Amino acid sequence: MTEQSDNSANAMWGGRFAAGPDAIMEAINASIGFDKRLYAQDIRGSRAHAAMLAAQGIISPNDEKAIGEGLLTVLSEIEAGDFPFKTALEDIHMNVESRLKEIIGEPAGRLHTARSRNDQVATDFRLWVRDQADAVIAGLEQLIRAALSQAEKGADWVMPGFTHLQTAQPVTWGHHMMAYVEMFGRDKSRFEDARKRMNESPLGAAALAGTSFPIDRHATAEALGFDRPMANSLDAVSDRDFALEFLSSAAICAVHLSRLAEELVIWSSAQFRFVTLSDRFSTGSSIMPQKKNPDAAELIRAKIGRILGAAVALFVVMKGLPLAYSKDMQEDKEQVFDAADNLMLALAAMSGMLTDLTANRDKLEAAAGSGFSTATDLADWLVREAGLPFRDAHHVTGTLVAMAEKQGIDLPDLTLDEMQSVNPAITQDIFTVLGVHNSVASRQSYGGTAPDQVRKQIARWKDILA
Amino acid sequence: MTEQSDNSANAMWGGRFAAGPDAIMEAINASIGFDKRLYAQDIRGSRAHAAMLAAQGIISPNDEKAIGEGLLTVLSEIEAGDFPFKTALEDIHMNVESRLKEIIGEPAGRLHTARSRNDQVATDFRLWVRDQADAVIAGLEQLIRAALSQAEKGADWVMPGFTHLQTAQPVTWGHHMMAYVEMFGRDKSRFEDARKRMNESPLGAAALAGTSFPIDRHATAEALGFDRPMANSLDAVSDRDFALEFLSSAAICAVHLSRLAEELVIWSSAQFRFVTLSDRFSTGSSIMPQKKNPDAAELIRAKIGRILGAAVALFVVMKGLPLAYSKDMQEDKEQVFDAADNLMLALAAMSGMLTDLTANRDKLEAAAGSGFSTATDLADWLVREAGLPFRDAHHVTGTLVAMAEKQGIDLPDLTLDEMQSVNPAITQDIFTVLGVHNSVASRQSYGGTAPDQVRKQIARWKDILA
Amino acid sequence: MTEQSDNSANAMWGGRFAAGPDAIMEAINASIGFDKRLYAQDIRGSRAHAAMLAAQGIISPNDEKAIGEGLLTVLSEIEAGDFPFKTALEDIHMNVESRLKEIIGEPAGRLHTARSRNDQVATDFRLWVRDQADAVIAGLEQLIRAALSQAEKGADWVMPGFTHLQTAQPVTWGHHMMAYVEMFGRDKSRFEDARKRMNESPLGAAALAGTSFPIDRHATAEALGFDRPMANSLDAVSDRDFALEFLSSAAICAVHLSRLAEELVIWSSAQFRFVTLSDRFSTGSSIMPQKKNPDAAELIRAKIGRILGAAVALFVVMKGLPLAYSKDMQEDKEQVFDAADNLMLALAAMSGMLTDLTANRDKLEAAAGSGFSTATDLADWLVREAGLPFRDAHHVTGTLVAMAEKQGIDLPDLTLDEMQSVNPAITQDIFTVLGVHNSVASRQSYGGTAPDQVRKQIARWKDILA
Amino acid sequence: MTEQSDNSANAMWGGRFAAGPDAIMEAINASIGFDKRLYAQDIRGSRAHAAMLAAQGIISPNDEKAIGEGLLTVLSEIEAGDFPFKTALEDIHMNVESRLKEIIGEPAGRLHTARSRNDQVATDFRLWVRDQADAVIAGLEQLIRAALSQAEKGADWVMPGFTHLQTAQPVTWGHHMMAYVEMFGRDKSRFEDARKRMNESPLGAAALAGTSFPIDRHATAEALGFDRPMANSLDAVSDRDFALEFLSSAAICAVHLSRLAEELVIWSSAQFRFVTLSDRFSTGSSIMPQKKNPDAAELIRAKIGRILGAAVALFVVMKGLPLAYSKDMQEDKEQVFDAADNLMLALAAMSGMLTDLTANRDKLEAAAGSGFSTATDLADWLVREAGLPFRDAHHVTGTLVAMAEKQGIDLPDLTLDEMQSVNPAITQDIFTVLGVHNSVASRQSYGGTAPDQVRKQIARWKDILA
Repeated sequence: MTEQSDNSANAMWGGRFAAGPDAIMEAINASIGFDKRLYAQDIRGSRAHAAMLAAQGIISPNDEKAIGEGLLTVLSEIEAGDFPFKTALEDIHMNVESRLKEIIGEPAGRLHTARSRNDQVATDFRLWVRDQADAVIAGLEQLIRAALSQAEKGADWVMPGFTHLQTAQPVTWGHHMMAYVEMFGRDKSRFEDARKRMNESPLGAAALAGTSFPIDRHATAEALGFDRPMANSLDAVSDRDFALEFLSSAAICAVHLSRLAEELVIWSSAQFRFVTLSDRFSTGSSIMPQKKNPDAAELIRAKIGRILGAAVALFVVMKGLPLAYSKDMQEDKEQVFDAADNLMLALAAMSGMLTDLTANRDKLEAAAGSGFSTATDLADWLVREAGLPFRDAHHVTGTLVAMAEKQGIDLPDLTLDEMQSVNPAITQDIFTVLGVHNSVASRQSYGGTAPDQVRKQIARWKDILA
Repeated sequence: MTEQSDNSANAMWGGRFAAGPDAIMEAINASIGFDKRLYAQDIRGSRAHAAMLAAQGIISPNDEKAIGEGLLTVLSEIEAGDFPFKTALEDIHMNVESRLKEIIGEPAGRLHTARSRNDQVATDFRLWVRDQADAVIAGLEQLIRAALSQAEKGADWVMPGFTHLQTAQPVTWGHHMMAYVEMFGRDKSRFEDARKRMNESPLGAAALAGTSFPIDRHATAEALGFDRPMANSLDAVSDRDFALEFLSSAAICAVHLSRLAEELVIWSSAQFRFVTLSDRFSTGSSIMPQKKNPDAAELIRAKIGRILGAAVALFVVMKGLPLAYSKDMQEDKEQVFDAADNLMLALAAMSGMLTDLTANRDKLEAAAGSGFSTATDLADWLVREAGLPFRDAHHVTGTLVAMAEKQGIDLPDLTLDEMQSVNPAITQDIFTVLGVHNSVASRQSYGGTAPDQVRKQIARWKDILA
Repeated sequence: MTEQSDNSANAMWGGRFAAGPDAIMEAINASIGFDKRLYAQDIRGSRAHAAMLAAQGIISPNDEKAIGEGLLTVLSEIEAGDFPFKTALEDIHMNVESRLKEIIGEPAGRLHTARSRNDQVATDFRLWVRDQADAVIAGLEQLIRAALSQAEKGADWVMPGFTHLQTAQPVTWGHHMMAYVEMFGRDKSRFEDARKRMNESPLGAAALAGTSFPIDRHATAEALGFDRPMANSLDAVSDRDFALEFLSSAAICAVHLSRLAEELVIWSSAQFRFVTLSDRFSTGSSIMPQKKNPDAAELIRAKIGRILGAAVALFVVMKGLPLAYSKDMQEDKEQVFDAADNLMLALAAMSGMLTDLTANRDKLEAAAGSGFSTATDLADWLVREAGLPFRDAHHVTGTLVAMAEKQGIDLPDLTLDEMQSVNPAITQDIFTVLGVHNSVASRQSYGGTAPDQVRKQIARWKDILA
Repeated sequence: MTEQSDNSANAMWGGRFAAGPDAIMEAINASIGFDKRLYAQDIRGSRAHAAMLAAQGIISPNDEKAIGEGLLTVLSEIEAGDFPFKTALEDIHMNVESRLKEIIGEPAGRLHTARSRNDQVATDFRLWVRDQADAVIAGLEQLIRAALSQAEKGADWVMPGFTHLQTAQPVTWGHHMMAYVEMFGRDKSRFEDARKRMNESPLGAAALAGTSFPIDRHATAEALGFDRPMANSLDAVSDRDFALEFLSSAAICAVHLSRLAEELVIWSSAQFRFVTLSDRFSTGSSIMPQKKNPDAAELIRAKIGRILGAAVALFVVMKGLPLAYSKDMQEDKEQVFDAADNLMLALAAMSGMLTDLTANRDKLEAAAGSGFSTATDLADWLVREAGLPFRDAHHVTGTLVAMAEKQGIDLPDLTLDEMQSVNPAITQDIFTVLGVHNSVASRQSYGGTAPDQVRKQIARWKDILA
């Protein structure tokens, strides 16, 4: 067998050129392939618009009734999978309108009065993004609950607190989980702010200049759950900052997810074994029983890639576009769709994985105590209780650690005599801060790792979510 | 002359290797080269910390007095340019502390009680970013004022409203300016939200676990203008989402600036001549009097590049970092510094350019009327006033446009007779919507381009800023 | 009508959670939804592998025959659209193998001898990207031909050469087109280099360590058109730099396309009218005859967004992944698929648009002459022919321009007497460089805009492509 | 102490506005703050230009001599740190030229004949980037040598080969190091290709159209080490694809570095202890002796952030810029400077770290054998030597693993009798593939992990670098 071209890419290329300019233009121009996802928002927006037109006397009640019912028929056709989408009709708006005309005839033509494709697409897309913001907020709450439940289980389980992936000080499993609760909590508030800011109605901006029909933009805004109409018609059809903000917020959230995912991958390794993932969120090897690949965690870790990529894509598209609408902006939807889908998937998978997760308490505790991780507690005690200057306290601590290391034991295993031989100011009280459990219990500052503090924060979050 | 290597890059490379591992490590590790910009925040944070330590009885009032005054001395040395920054001391925190020790001696060692470099740097950086958020908000207000002033001047000057850079419908200069007021207004609210979210104090999180000293985190939070202490010490030293949010908001704002900048570049071209830039914000040619290069506008247009680049950089740095502190995070500051500096510069330059700008009213009006830009007004009149179905209205309009085009005149120049010959339902009233001034005046829908509407929005914004 | 939730996003979210962990894991884990595009490469790779196994005596000739024929059957089923893809089988590799087993039974099990999913997917993906590189190279040649043809037509048509979108000096249409020929030529060579570098076979790397079967990696490499096998099995299954290089090269090419597209958008505006796009690559308005929206140009301009976004996505995914295979890498394909598809589409659309394009010679020439664009020619003549110092030449030129401006004429319209009144060294010869045609004709330096020079470059490129 | 504003950012902002438009314009417009790094390239380019002007009779030999010597004086002033850079002179080119005039007087004015700032800056920048490409290539060679030296030391040391950070199969330390040698080797070839492609001279393109002076662009190209002059003057001053390609190649290299850095961080953890970093490239804790923070590795891991950010920045800047020069392009240099500096630093630090690194052979070997990592070897033997179908081989292997696991032993510790009790086809020969050393020794396929294969590749690379 020698090199033989079954080169499908070249075939496609040749095919594309052979197909000629019209086919190329249709391929680059049509958006129905992706914007059909806006069908529910499109129909909802059109129904609100028709109702307002009738209320203002711009169309007749009969026309409005026909339009409203016809649109519901279209909606059910689409949801039943019976709708014949046509690429020749380019986008979801024309597909819906054209089908409406088949169903109800002439009144369909009046739906587009005092409206343009420009404000229609801006409205539909805003509704879609707003729906996604709601979904992400709900997903984050679910994830926070999963983390809270882990935190509650292990509020006093000790584990290593790492800096540079080196054990620094003991913390508790609950405390570590609660760090993510805080992060996901801020993510949630970021989506809530974004939702509020985007919740203004572009409908009625028409092509770009507003309209001379006596429309009521406040009415359609209210009907669609918007807080108010947008205050400038050019801005309404030109800007996509709400999508950029959604993508940016999604990327920040995806960074948080990537960090927890990285920890799960490392913690699942044979060397760490801090956690055991459920079989549902890992894959194994039929012949290597210990091998448990953290596939879901790895995929979640990767999602920041495509979500940040989507954000970059839309930033670049919008860069330097003169007002008002430019066709470039048709590239906005696919990026947001992809980012939203993948963020939701990552949230769901992380929630599931965290719910199923078993933290290996013994492994965590053993690791927490290694490397003289309570040496800083000893030094702090010397400063706090014995009144030593910081530098002297460090010197004494270093000597005691060396003494313990030489004997192959940990700090709490030294005798009081041994300690006093280094510095006579040391009293029995020092043992209250040595050892990982004493260490964490002593970190009583607000937001500290002491189990009491952790439980207070768990309670606070339960109240918030209640 | 032949190829002769005066290759400075290779020399540097050779030099770097010759300098040896220690020099390489210092070069990659030290941050004092850039983090000295945090000096004011660092000293402010330390003073608040010392005051709290004394109030809690952790250090003596005398020590606190010495520390507080010593830090003010350091501050004035730095601001006077007399401070000897040392790379060997690595960062701003060690430079300040070391100098403090030289000035006040032993008590300097007590300042770091119940604190760690980790919470110190997180506090300093948050204070710096918060200050920048305040500055950006002030800068945006200035810019909005400049745009408002342009809008007020030309609330009823007509210009082409473009889609695809093709004239679509007439709008007013004021309306176009107000579109940017809305965008910059949302930018402002985005920074306000970000500021609120970041305004929590990491101080007292210590290395990562909190501390066993009886500190009062609420007191330091209040002293530093924070709304509250952060609720989880691990989170406090690990996350940089406030910086990511600042960068994302800056990038969205920079997109808006790039769009206006692009318009100014195009509008300044010989072919458009919609605006004339002041000499202060353009450069000329000594021998080509008409050439006026819009340098400032081009540089503003470019700023989205480095600001988005800075955002991407920090997103990538933070991806997949396990808790708590990793040295990777040292890369956070330069990106935010550069983005903040350039955003401020762009805001200042755009404010100045907009203030100085002359819109060429005649050129704008002439362009607004070309291309039968009020054809949609005619069609809308036919639907609205004569009750024609949309499709018929379009047909009639097309016929009238063709008639005018054949005669080389614009639509309002057709006689009523000529119009009625195409459709007898047309009345004298139609002339109230033809012509660019009539057209814009008719767009009375909320947020539309009618001068009345524009003036209402100007008034609303003046109230907001008042 | 009040706010009523027909919130499909929440429904989906709820649905997703209701569906439970297994459905979530399948949704995040399965790749068959996108990697089925690798079917041709997968089958080709498997056939080469089977042939090698037989040649090395690892499987029997009969098995090889059955496998080879069975795979062709699978291929034809897929190409006929008859193949039942199953999500439960996760990816294209398992789908093909499972179907092969249905068709040929037991020998199918031997195909996977001395191979792993890891080297199989690396091989398939490399083949796919290589095919795309070939297609892009062909597409760039087509585009270069279209630009050459424009250049040939207008090798001596004058137009403004812009800096800062301000007329600087006259150039020729041909020269401007040839600038893009150079850019696309470098793009082509970039893809050629990338192709060469990626053209090594991962097949036989097995899971990551190589294999103990006596395979012949050189044979499979040759059969698949690779230049050689990769020299390190860990590297073979771990790296995706070939995809990053493809994406980076695509992004550079997309920048070039965006620049030409921007020019076409600006040049199509009513204010410029430098070019007229064909109806096939623009859209119009039924009632505004002059409006010709450059949709295709705008969409091409936007493509750098998603292509750069795809590059960023994969860079982020690959950041910090330990060797060898991590599941994160499953995110590589969709980005490359999307970028490749869109680059091809943009190349095809730009080729078509450029082929159809009419440059408006008169408009170009009129614009070229405005603004005393040959003032620098006059100054250069004074330096070159009259021996004036540069500064004096500029002074004389400025005076002459002012003189012409005052009279409302262009430089070549001044009389010799008038010129000599400013500087007596001026002779009749000066008229040979004034006026846009003289100006361009005089730029005879290599690569300059003189029509002769332009034609030489056209000829050189025709040779290259021949 | 209450909230008191020592808000330096606001002060700066106020200051900036107070300073007025001229100060703002200077701040945004001047480039001397960063482009002074081009001084050596600028002087080199000017000397080549002057020599050519003289050779072509455009300037006199005396002028050329004065210019050439004057420029060397400027060069030595700059290198001695005595050069008075002036912001008012905006950029390096004007600073050098103005100082030249001070030194040699009138002839300085002739240097700029037949040249423009546009081709001058393009030339300088290309020379700078080319120098950097050379430096990066040298740096990569150094790094490859460091990796080769590690590979040689441990060509037969076994360690776990990971997938998903789970042990999959044993590999050798040498093999793992050689995977990076391959990656860095491709990085090197990528920079070599980029260097070749960029190595064309823009000099003589003048402002954009070429020149009417009888210059010799081939001569200046040769004098500056370029392969040829660029063939289109518009392209020469307009494009920055060479910088984009440099940045993209740097980003790919930085991804490779980030992966090795991540491994070093993980391998340095207390849980892995696969490697011990030297004190020079890590930092410790005075009181926790085992804590060794891998600072350099973490900073290297982070560098992909700023390098990718720089690439994104320049891609965004260049998006949609019409030809020829736009001021936006002034933003090109800082990004390339920063990316080049940081890549060089990361290469130097990684080379140093790898040179100093101690791989802990015993830890690696112990980890390699855990988890029945040679189970696939057993299964492969059953297929290869005993002729079992793949599925049966897997079944037998699973049974044997379970048997060993029950006894708490590894596979090679089972007796032949025990094995034959599961499948009688097993012979004594099976022990030749069990155990990690046998396993790796058996992977003799080209590029496999067998020490012989690894040593062959080491030898090949030594030849390449020799």
